[in-house]
Amino acid sequence: MNAYQPHAAEHTFVLFDVLRAHEQLAELPAMAEHADTALLTQVIEEAGKFVGEVVAPLNREGDEVGAQWRNGAVTMPPGFRDAYQAFWQAGWPSLASATEDGGQGLPCVLEAVLHEMLNAANHGWTMAPGLLHGAYECIRHHGSDALKARYLDKLASGEWLATMCLTEPHAGSDLGLASTRALPLPDGHYALSGTKIFISGGDHDLSDNIVHLVLARLPDAPPGPKGLSLFVVPKFEADGSRSAVHCERIEEKMGLHGSPTCVMRFDAARAAIIGEPGKGLNAMFVMMNSARLLVGLQGVGLLDAAWQKASAYAQERRQMRAPGTSSKVGEADLIALHPAMQRILGTQRAWIDAGRVIAYRTALELDIQKHHPDAARRDAAARWCSLVTPVLKSAWTEQAFSGASACLQVFGGHGYVREWGIEQHVRDARVSMIYEGTNEIQAIDLLVRKTLPDGAASLRALLAELAEDSADPRARAALERFEHFVRHAVVAATTPQGTASVDRPYWLADDFLRALALLLMAWAWSRIAAAESGGKPSAGAAFWRWVWPEFEMRMTLMDNTLAEA
Amino acid sequence: MNAYQPHAAEHTFVLFDVLRAHEQLAELPAMAEHADTALLTQVIEEAGKFVGEVVAPLNREGDEVGAQWRNGAVTMPPGFRDAYQAFWQAGWPSLASATEDGGQGLPCVLEAVLHEMLNAANHGWTMAPGLLHGAYECIRHHGSDALKARYLDKLASGEWLATMCLTEPHAGSDLGLASTRALPLPDGHYALSGTKIFISGGDHDLSDNIVHLVLARLPDAPPGPKGLSLFVVPKFEADGSRSAVHCERIEEKMGLHGSPTCVMRFDAARAAIIGEPGKGLNAMFVMMNSARLLVGLQGVGLLDAAWQKASAYAQERRQMRAPGTSSKVGEADLIALHPAMQRILGTQRAWIDAGRVIAYRTALELDIQKHHPDAARRDAAARWCSLVTPVLKSAWTEQAFSGASACLQVFGGHGYVREWGIEQHVRDARVSMIYEGTNEIQAIDLLVRKTLPDGAASLRALLAELAEDSADPRARAALERFEHFVRHAVVAATTPQGTASVDRPYWLADDFLRALALLLMAWAWSRIAAAESGGKPSAGAAFWRWVWPEFEMRMTLMDNTLAEA
Repeated sequence: MNAYQPHAAEHTFVLFDVLRAHEQLAELPAMAEHADTALLTQVIEEAGKFVGEVVAPLNREGDEVGAQWRNGAVTMPPGFRDAYQAFWQAGWPSLASATEDGGQGLPCVLEAVLHEMLNAANHGWTMAPGLLHGAYECIRHHGSDALKARYLDKLASGEWLATMCLTEPHAGSDLGLASTRALPLPDGHYALSGTKIFISGGDHDLSDNIVHLVLARLPDAPPGPKGLSLFVVPKFEADGSRSAVHCERIEEKMGLHGSPTCVMRFDAARAAIIGEPGKGLNAMFVMMNSARLLVGLQGVGLLDAAWQKASAYAQERRQMRAPGTSSKVGEADLIALHPAMQRILGTQRAWIDAGRVIAYRTALELDIQKHHPDAARRDAAARWCSLVTPVLKSAWTEQAFSGASACLQVFGGHGYVREWGIEQHVRDARVSMIYEGTNEIQAIDLLVRKTLPDGAASLRALLAELAEDSADPRARAALERFEHFVRHAVVAATTPQGTASVDRPYWLADDFLRALALLLMAWAWSRIAAAESGGKPSAGAAFWRWVWPEFEMRMTLMDNTLAEA
Repeated sequence: MNAYQPHAAEHTFVLFDVLRAHEQLAELPAMAEHADTALLTQVIEEAGKFVGEVVAPLNREGDEVGAQWRNGAVTMPPGFRDAYQAFWQAGWPSLASATEDGGQGLPCVLEAVLHEMLNAANHGWTMAPGLLHGAYECIRHHGSDALKARYLDKLASGEWLATMCLTEPHAGSDLGLASTRALPLPDGHYALSGTKIFISGGDHDLSDNIVHLVLARLPDAPPGPKGLSLFVVPKFEADGSRSAVHCERIEEKMGLHGSPTCVMRFDAARAAIIGEPGKGLNAMFVMMNSARLLVGLQGVGLLDAAWQKASAYAQERRQMRAPGTSSKVGEADLIALHPAMQRILGTQRAWIDAGRVIAYRTALELDIQKHHPDAARRDAAARWCSLVTPVLKSAWTEQAFSGASACLQVFGGHGYVREWGIEQHVRDARVSMIYEGTNEIQAIDLLVRKTLPDGAASLRALLAELAEDSADPRARAALERFEHFVRHAVVAATTPQGTASVDRPYWLADDFLRALALLLMAWAWSRIAAAESGGKPSAGAAFWRWVWPEFEMRMTLMDNTLAEA
């Protein structure tokens, strides 16, 4: 079975025809020179070529050989180091980094397209550069001048790779329980001691140095999240000496074998602080928010990779007569003609295409949030990113897993054997529902942290914006209905003035996020339909027929929860 | 993490308190002597002990070491052969075989309980004896006296194991495309040549002989399914010589590593015919129908095994404060107190408990179908088995996979690493959606083959029976509504007199099966509620709150399909 191949035209269609990205970028002084469809298309085509020719062919062996741990060091699967060296030397990691740090200053949305393709092609390999841009942003915004001087250009270029060291054995979703200690040293540095787990790329041989960003606790720090500070520990010091951080072992996992998930031991490792003591989580959240968008893009990409395989197989394999077909070629019809297979493929396509619109729009809003001259527009962009990112992360990683499983079903028994490569997507995709904040935590983030505190004002503004931008009457009506429901039912029943128990929003959260995901899809399909020339076959019909009815079910589920005593 | 442990009381509650199995068995002359709750409870307790002590502990190594192929022979994982030898020597395979064949003549429903436990404990190991009873029944009903004399007692006792050799590289769901040839030999036997794939247990070292039942085509056979005949080829002939059937390789799979999935090559292998030429598929369907019930039981068992692990973990792991809790033990609450985790665990429990009621009822109806003195009651039993088996197989294998994945989510990142064993359930469960007829084929079987041909008369009789047996008004109302919908909408729109296109039932089938699954659950929860003493906590509330709203969505989906031009 052939490896995933990017099709640049599918991505540029969403960017330019659906989202009019070039027009939006033209409004940003820092980006105006890049607001050129020909230039952006060329970058996307080159990216597609690199991904298809260099990264995608390594995916299978990445799964089968996997990252290997021996005597404290990790060896990556065959070809991974060469591909990574070619990747950074070609300038791909620095696409959206600032020109003053040696970057190319291109828009974030371009990096989003690149990462969607990379994840579709090789999820394991892409984990390594996945955290790079976040680490770069984190040091850029919070690091001292000395730290910037030492790390910024290496991270911008991708010559060095980075990790996020957060989780500990007893501190997963609840980082406040972390207990790694940082003792001040006389020279202003710190000695870090503790064990971090689930560290993606904690060790590897892709790059000549690895920069660890680590959450730890100063001796006088209070318990809980406010006692956490952020530190940087390089694998190799400036003088070339090896620092006291080591990979103790790597996890045996369900999938994602191309990415080593490391247990990292810090033995009084020499560290520098990033930002202020006790503000570690704030600094880290800069990384986590951009990481969440990338995980959402993983969802879209992984689902597209699975869809490509299943769609190709359905056009090759013949079993039984399909109902109502008149063709008499051979003894059986292509399985692509069977209704159950058409439903599976159409449904996944509906998720992929809408997810791409939503993800690219979010990346574009990141560019707008950074660079738009109008503060009100920047606020609207921040609102979009804040509210839509958890929805994208949660709903599209869920779909990457369940949809890849549906694509596996197209292969019948051949899907369950490794030969065809489809089962790898299912195993790989599963982790995306967990990391960067579990999907349940995304739902709580959306409703409890971001919607209820301002009485849903931000959310309602987002809904109004979507409704205004939706030509399809079904989308518009549902958005208005949901806005009404949020205002009159959710807010009323969950504010302290209400009679509700304090846990009610937590019972609502999953359905609430899911309803918003479907509304975003309805908006996206309305936009896609408006951009389509008409002759092109589209998964919009599959969306309205097979996916959309879930919205009503989510409303019922929420009504039931609100009706609980 | 501890291995799965059966809890006999959960199974006897369903059998005796919910289903009143002892009263139903008392009406069957052949079973009346076994219609004793004390006797049946003792068998179930002994089965639970064997499963928990002997079979469950081998599950993990079965996955990690897996079945190994070397030079044409398969070696099973450590401990598998000893456990199997102990299993058949203790008489477990012969539970429901006829006493005249050396069996114990106990009811099928007891075998169902045993197989649910076995599959929960060790899906891979249980694949081996999984086909035994079907092979026994097949030869018992269709074999010549000579075949019976040679095989029946060995299969009844389980001293020899059996396979079903159906699939070929180009004939999966569409067995009519099979091309394995059977040439008549002068002595009345046949020489079989061809390659069969996906043969579970095609070779192994569990038993001293393996009996292959093989679909093949006589020289003058017509193309398609009516040209298939059924043959038996033993691994070892009566004189001890090795027959010309060999395992060429085993598949690398997503999971189920404890069961070798074999490519079997027949090189003019000496074979005997079972039943009449051209009636092979009929004879094989006897095996497939009982196999489908067993696969449904796999779904229930695998989900229960995943639930046991997740529930135990949720009672151990602490992360964050749960909303509204007043406990101040330590710095964080048990994750079992978090609403999102309660929803996951309650939802899966709702599926497991209802699935068990439906599966045991189906097994009981098999006993009734075989042994009831009243022909009308036998017909009703046959109707139940025919209509409910595809629903059970499809909906509960789907839930075993998606529900095991939900249970994995309870573990967060720890769920994705192999250490805790939960990810194995997800990988193992996935195959059950494919084999014994894909879930899409079950849906077509239910609607196109079993419901529409008699104008839904059988289905409507089933719905009426369920409604009469449901004390819960929600269940009763929904069953009556569905009956009306089937009669007025589905049948009218899909009969040749209607204007519908011939493919419409195929577009409806998946939602139709799913709606019936939910109705069966509503009936089952109505029955469970009636049997419960009241004080016991129950997942019934989780069913009505979280699972049931899907019914309305399925009705909408079907309305949409019926409204299509």
